[in-house]
Amino acid sequence: VSQQRRSGVGVWLIGGRGSVATTAIAGAAALRSGAVTNTGCVTEQPDFAGVGLPPFDALVFGGHDLTSTPLTKRAEALVQAGVLPTHLPTLVHDDLLVADAEIRHGIQTGRGARPRELIDAVVADLTAFRDRHRLARVVVINVASTEPPLSSDPAVEGLLPLEAALDAGADVLPASSLYAYAALCAGCPVVDFTPSTGMRLPALDELARNRGLPYAGSDGKTGETLVKTALAPLFASRALRVRSWAGTNLLGGGDGATLADPHTQESKVSSKQRAAEEILGYGVNTPMHIDYVPDLGEWKTAWDHVSFEGFLGVRMVMQFTWQGADSALAAPLVLDLARLVARAYEVGESGPLAALAFFFKDPVATQEHRLVAQYDTLRAWARDRLTVPA
Amino acid sequence: VSQQRRSGVGVWLIGGRGSVATTAIAGAAALRSGAVTNTGCVTEQPDFAGVGLPPFDALVFGGHDLTSTPLTKRAEALVQAGVLPTHLPTLVHDDLLVADAEIRHGIQTGRGARPRELIDAVVADLTAFRDRHRLARVVVINVASTEPPLSSDPAVEGLLPLEAALDAGADVLPASSLYAYAALCAGCPVVDFTPSTGMRLPALDELARNRGLPYAGSDGKTGETLVKTALAPLFASRALRVRSWAGTNLLGGGDGATLADPHTQESKVSSKQRAAEEILGYGVNTPMHIDYVPDLGEWKTAWDHVSFEGFLGVRMVMQFTWQGADSALAAPLVLDLARLVARAYEVGESGPLAALAFFFKDPVATQEHRLVAQYDTLRAWARDRLTVPA
Amino acid sequence: VSQQRRSGVGVWLIGGRGSVATTAIAGAAALRSGAVTNTGCVTEQPDFAGVGLPPFDALVFGGHDLTSTPLTKRAEALVQAGVLPTHLPTLVHDDLLVADAEIRHGIQTGRGARPRELIDAVVADLTAFRDRHRLARVVVINVASTEPPLSSDPAVEGLLPLEAALDAGADVLPASSLYAYAALCAGCPVVDFTPSTGMRLPALDELARNRGLPYAGSDGKTGETLVKTALAPLFASRALRVRSWAGTNLLGGGDGATLADPHTQESKVSSKQRAAEEILGYGVNTPMHIDYVPDLGEWKTAWDHVSFEGFLGVRMVMQFTWQGADSALAAPLVLDLARLVARAYEVGESGPLAALAFFFKDPVATQEHRLVAQYDTLRAWARDRLTVPA
Amino acid sequence: VSQQRRSGVGVWLIGGRGSVATTAIAGAAALRSGAVTNTGCVTEQPDFAGVGLPPFDALVFGGHDLTSTPLTKRAEALVQAGVLPTHLPTLVHDDLLVADAEIRHGIQTGRGARPRELIDAVVADLTAFRDRHRLARVVVINVASTEPPLSSDPAVEGLLPLEAALDAGADVLPASSLYAYAALCAGCPVVDFTPSTGMRLPALDELARNRGLPYAGSDGKTGETLVKTALAPLFASRALRVRSWAGTNLLGGGDGATLADPHTQESKVSSKQRAAEEILGYGVNTPMHIDYVPDLGEWKTAWDHVSFEGFLGVRMVMQFTWQGADSALAAPLVLDLARLVARAYEVGESGPLAALAFFFKDPVATQEHRLVAQYDTLRAWARDRLTVPA
Repeated sequence: VSQQRRSGVGVWLIGGRGSVATTAIAGAAALRSGAVTNTGCVTEQPDFAGVGLPPFDALVFGGHDLTSTPLTKRAEALVQAGVLPTHLPTLVHDDLLVADAEIRHGIQTGRGARPRELIDAVVADLTAFRDRHRLARVVVINVASTEPPLSSDPAVEGLLPLEAALDAGADVLPASSLYAYAALCAGCPVVDFTPSTGMRLPALDELARNRGLPYAGSDGKTGETLVKTALAPLFASRALRVRSWAGTNLLGGGDGATLADPHTQESKVSSKQRAAEEILGYGVNTPMHIDYVPDLGEWKTAWDHVSFEGFLGVRMVMQFTWQGADSALAAPLVLDLARLVARAYEVGESGPLAALAFFFKDPVATQEHRLVAQYDTLRAWARDRLTVPA
Repeated sequence: VSQQRRSGVGVWLIGGRGSVATTAIAGAAALRSGAVTNTGCVTEQPDFAGVGLPPFDALVFGGHDLTSTPLTKRAEALVQAGVLPTHLPTLVHDDLLVADAEIRHGIQTGRGARPRELIDAVVADLTAFRDRHRLARVVVINVASTEPPLSSDPAVEGLLPLEAALDAGADVLPASSLYAYAALCAGCPVVDFTPSTGMRLPALDELARNRGLPYAGSDGKTGETLVKTALAPLFASRALRVRSWAGTNLLGGGDGATLADPHTQESKVSSKQRAAEEILGYGVNTPMHIDYVPDLGEWKTAWDHVSFEGFLGVRMVMQFTWQGADSALAAPLVLDLARLVARAYEVGESGPLAALAFFFKDPVATQEHRLVAQYDTLRAWARDRLTVPA
Repeated sequence: VSQQRRSGVGVWLIGGRGSVATTAIAGAAALRSGAVTNTGCVTEQPDFAGVGLPPFDALVFGGHDLTSTPLTKRAEALVQAGVLPTHLPTLVHDDLLVADAEIRHGIQTGRGARPRELIDAVVADLTAFRDRHRLARVVVINVASTEPPLSSDPAVEGLLPLEAALDAGADVLPASSLYAYAALCAGCPVVDFTPSTGMRLPALDELARNRGLPYAGSDGKTGETLVKTALAPLFASRALRVRSWAGTNLLGGGDGATLADPHTQESKVSSKQRAAEEILGYGVNTPMHIDYVPDLGEWKTAWDHVSFEGFLGVRMVMQFTWQGADSALAAPLVLDLARLVARAYEVGESGPLAALAFFFKDPVATQEHRLVAQYDTLRAWARDRLTVPA
Repeated sequence: VSQQRRSGVGVWLIGGRGSVATTAIAGAAALRSGAVTNTGCVTEQPDFAGVGLPPFDALVFGGHDLTSTPLTKRAEALVQAGVLPTHLPTLVHDDLLVADAEIRHGIQTGRGARPRELIDAVVADLTAFRDRHRLARVVVINVASTEPPLSSDPAVEGLLPLEAALDAGADVLPASSLYAYAALCAGCPVVDFTPSTGMRLPALDELARNRGLPYAGSDGKTGETLVKTALAPLFASRALRVRSWAGTNLLGGGDGATLADPHTQESKVSSKQRAAEEILGYGVNTPMHIDYVPDLGEWKTAWDHVSFEGFLGVRMVMQFTWQGADSALAAPLVLDLARLVARAYEVGESGPLAALAFFFKDPVATQEHRLVAQYDTLRAWARDRLTVPA
């Protein structure tokens, strides 16, 4: 198949049957149908017109997952949870069936398989998907459940030791990084949308640069941290000293259950706390909790209490609550990232894409956490680096 | 007195015995004494080092007020209200006495005096103050109570008709604009820190440009609107559609009593509501109330409820409360503005200073309301336009 | 038709096609079907077992309304608004059709008809309904839109002057009171579930007592006031002095639109503010607003800010928000009241039913506003006065 | 000294130099001086007039503590923390000195001393205090830091095994219970104002009954739980089903530091969670956290999120925040309890005082947690059991 005749863009979702993936796939289909507006889609704003991003109807979905609950059933559950509109599953039923047929059983570490076997299986799935649909390129996006943090290991500090370790059959990579490694081998850009390790290893950064592949991450900024990176600059720029920034997150659904595990929670909490301190420029007491509240379903409520000091030491308080549906906040960003990263690859960008910091709690290759500055950077990058010359 | 030997900077406060003025004067004295840290002072941050701003000990305070309660007594009241630290009035007692001696009785319209007489009196006060202290320049800053909005009048649309109307003894200018006119006549830059009319008349803009004087305004951004201009860009940049943004402001103290008057409240509310809509780019239902709650004293509590729509129309809510002491938030900005505007005048800036939008609810000469973008503009302006060449 | 053979209880709803009525009718049908649990139904709790209340399947619905939108359509709208479960309209479709057939066009004052004509029409509707369904008794409950407050008029201070005024064709009664008068004439107990005048006139109280009919009211306690009457006793019993209790109510839907009118709002606000002061025993600054926020639909958000003083004058703050669906909170109370008032009439209670204060913002014949005390009174009354002797 | 001539009432505070004790002692002195109002004092309300409670000027303070920071210094710190008014330490300086002279070094377990020795020392201190001041009776109140929960031990299940264990020198009692045991031996009623074990052992209950001594407890209800027991009856009485009740407590000061220890926190959290479930009558998911936020000083902020279900399963949410100074809330209750328990002992009450449940998170001898019902019980008990016959 000649490259010239390929035009579609594949979106390969690790965790392809989860809430975020289902919402993204159903939403893209609904947008194609014209039945819904593009609220929540960053790249649909006028700032991104003329940039040459692939249109929604160029996107073809596939992915890996460990569960076999079909997308159609999952979409019904999301209707019950108030995340998808009542009529949507019927409207996009065929699209869900098509995407579901492209979801392969995911890999699992610690079950005896050698890492090279797992990698080869993923590469084969990705290559077959690309060929079957004659796709110009495929973006691999991790939206699977969060892994616990990885212990440090010299084998992941560079590509050579990593290759040696893999050859030796050593289990040095968690699943998220095996997927990322395989994606790069298959010539696919990678997006880490979760706090799992994924691309965040020197060895994988090296591999991406070697292969001229761009990557983005990590941990989609969808709720409390999104608000923090909008608010913390207020205190920083006004020289108001934050004394403590306490937060509680009530999560229902699968996310809450996973994060109820204290070890896993560590990945998330650490990712959430970094932003405020980096914006403020000093250490702050930031007690933070994630509580599993099953009755909240797919919804999340965060409460933050910011105690700060103003002129002459007077103490003041700001509090906020955020009641959001995480999947509905994450899904359009997944589509935005698929479009932007596919385009970035097309125009030759490679390595970590710092300009996409706007989308992430823990952005690669930049210290800029201020939301507005991140947006202005994104906009300028899209205009200057991605845009088709007139 | 030759200009060369003058080095001090005068800060002339309309409303010189109010809470904001008292806090600013007491705070500047405390900062000079080294007894307090510079929390809340924007221009004390590293970004403004080397810009050539006048130091705190170059500032000399004076002003107009209609009350005769001395600053020392007012400072005691602010201690009781929790705005000033217990020990401060003793620490800065002498400085308060000195400043108090420089406060003149303010002008009042509608009492029979012809406008030219009122203007001349203000000019004489300003000139005498400058000469007495051999000041290089004097910045006039309005921190007096809010006036009701002004009805439109052709006489204020240009300088010529305005001069004619004043010559004829017509009461076309409210007190805030008489002060501004007089300040310009006396060669002083003007800062509108309240929503009162002040400089916001084409005739006064013309006068400032004619005289090569800079001016800034209007309405210091200290509480709910400060938060709004940090938060609204979140919704705008993420393409989340705000459906309504309701706000309630509970105010104690003098500010609350003044703003309990529905006609006066109109000035404030209108100034507060503009920002969100301009950032979002579309009209939004923004019911907003100001309630007078005397027991809150110098404190203010705002509650905002933002109802917004995300991907596929799902509806979410963000709420925040802000518990702040307005005077403590405003006073350091008054000092920042005095320093920045004095320096701007020194280096030859004139007309409306759009680069100071960061400080205002309703900034002159710009549509940029996003707090972070305003800060980046301010920083760049200070670096590029104000800095002393090395 | 002999009284002995009548057993059903009629529930005649003024405002029979509104949100509250539709939810009550649909809910009663769902409860009869066994498809839903009885959450929110006070009289379904063990405390009311054995009291002899009419069961849900004894209730027959009818009413008056000025609109002709059928209940089935209204129920669909309530599903969209998130007040009724998706499957409910189908489940209770036939019950809605049956009830809809019993809704008559309502009366309107100020259109030329003489009051006696309007009254006679209502009496005829009620009597026909009772006979048609061979009902033992019919309870008339006003759940229509709130009227503006009534100006005082000597004609309503006693039954004799009222009869004379009605004979003379004078428009002395608002619609809510015309309905109440007619209900009493038809031998029906009355429940004022809104803040409209209804039974709250000495003349109507006299009429009810003359006829041996019980009545209850007024203004269902479903949201902010419900919380207030649970919380205010905390401050009262702990001798904590409330300094101010400010409240904001954001209302969508029809209720919000009606209450956006400042004159009508007066009825509601006055009813809401009384409770806290009567519990606390002293006057409190209680600024209160109702804002119309259409995008909230059938939902309501209230924010209350309570500033209070403790030991040695230290000042503290409590705040709460309440996000509720008013119709879902009101509807089960309508069913509770129908059952309780029907039973009260059956056992011979007459005049104002103070024991039902638990249900109302502005209860008749009692000063007890404390929710828990009201509940204990209700429970004791049901046990001692309503219960069938064993 | 004959009993007839004794009239004062001793208040012996375990933790006599802590924040609560200091505030109580300073407050009682201020009340005696007439310089402050009795806000926050339950027993000063009209409901308790004529009950025969000892007046404030009959109270004489003493206690045990492990620290030696004098009350005068502690009071200054409480002024800085905003808990005591600025002028208070000067006003009550002499009273603080007098009380400070009556504070003895507290006992400590696990340091080699045999329990009987520790008990004897406490008995000696109490007896000497009573004799020195010719007090009619002494109430011992524990306001010391919270202990971790006690493991179960058969030795504390009855008085006989306990006496045997103490005779054998076994460390079966934590400090709070040693104090309680000693108090009973010295003929003093006991109040457990903390969640520490104290009187909550069958053996001590038996001892109190044997000696005809009343006791009360446990864990003063001053903040979040106070609100919970006012609000939970709302949901219970309206048959609204609470699905989850999540809470976060941000604590500064010593209390926060102590409770940061997870083992100690267990005592507190368990005491806080019981109330809601007992009022509601069913198990509820109640994730609850205590976070140590040092910058809050003596203040506490609690945020609670209540997710509940109404009619037909519709889901609603109530949230509240409580910003209080725990010592200021606790101190007047300590005075109330001293007066009530002293009077109860005087009139012959003995054993657990269920009628005092109003004051406690985890009340003895009753399941009634509803605040209003507890108040009505307290009032009736004071009237019927404590009041001096006319």
